[in-house]
Amino acid sequence: MIARVLVTPKPVVNDPQGLTVKQGLASLGFREVTDVRIGKYIEINLEGTTEHEARQRVEEMCRQLLANHVIEDFRFEIEREHSRR
Amino acid sequence: MIARVLVTPKPVVNDPQGLTVKQGLASLGFREVTDVRIGKYIEINLEGTTEHEARQRVEEMCRQLLANHVIEDFRFEIEREHSRR
Repeated sequence: MIARVLVTPKPVVNDPQGLTVKQGLASLGFREVTDVRIGKYIEINLEGTTEHEARQRVEEMCRQLLANHVIEDFRFEIEREHSRR
Repeated sequence: MIARVLVTPKPVVNDPQGLTVKQGLASLGFREVTDVRIGKYIEINLEGTTEHEARQRVEEMCRQLLANHVIEDFRFEIEREHSRR
């Protein structure tokens, strides 16, 4: 079972990393870019769980360790096969 | 137009951040986790481009700035609407 987790800064939170990348892209000539937000992508392999169990466990992992709920949102998908998206 | 970019460490490259998170999860009791890989998720808003143009430009952004092709892979989707996945 594989979980693909996205952790993103909440829309109201400043994202200095994204701002820096936006400025970097502008200085390279990519002036059509109006906004950049940067988050984390986390791929988790799980063994010996059902899809339903995995969903509950990954939700718990996000709450306890992977995301800071004060400033970040998270969402995830569970996949049975280890296939690349 | 919005581009959702995933930048991930290549499979052959060590991912110390992922290893640390895996150990952290294990110490929290998530022992079903066999592997963790950590990458970046980048959301880019683009103005005044067609989908075809945006695809070429974002590919170029990844090559020039967003991904280090020696150690990272990238993939992305282009969406017309700014809808949350």
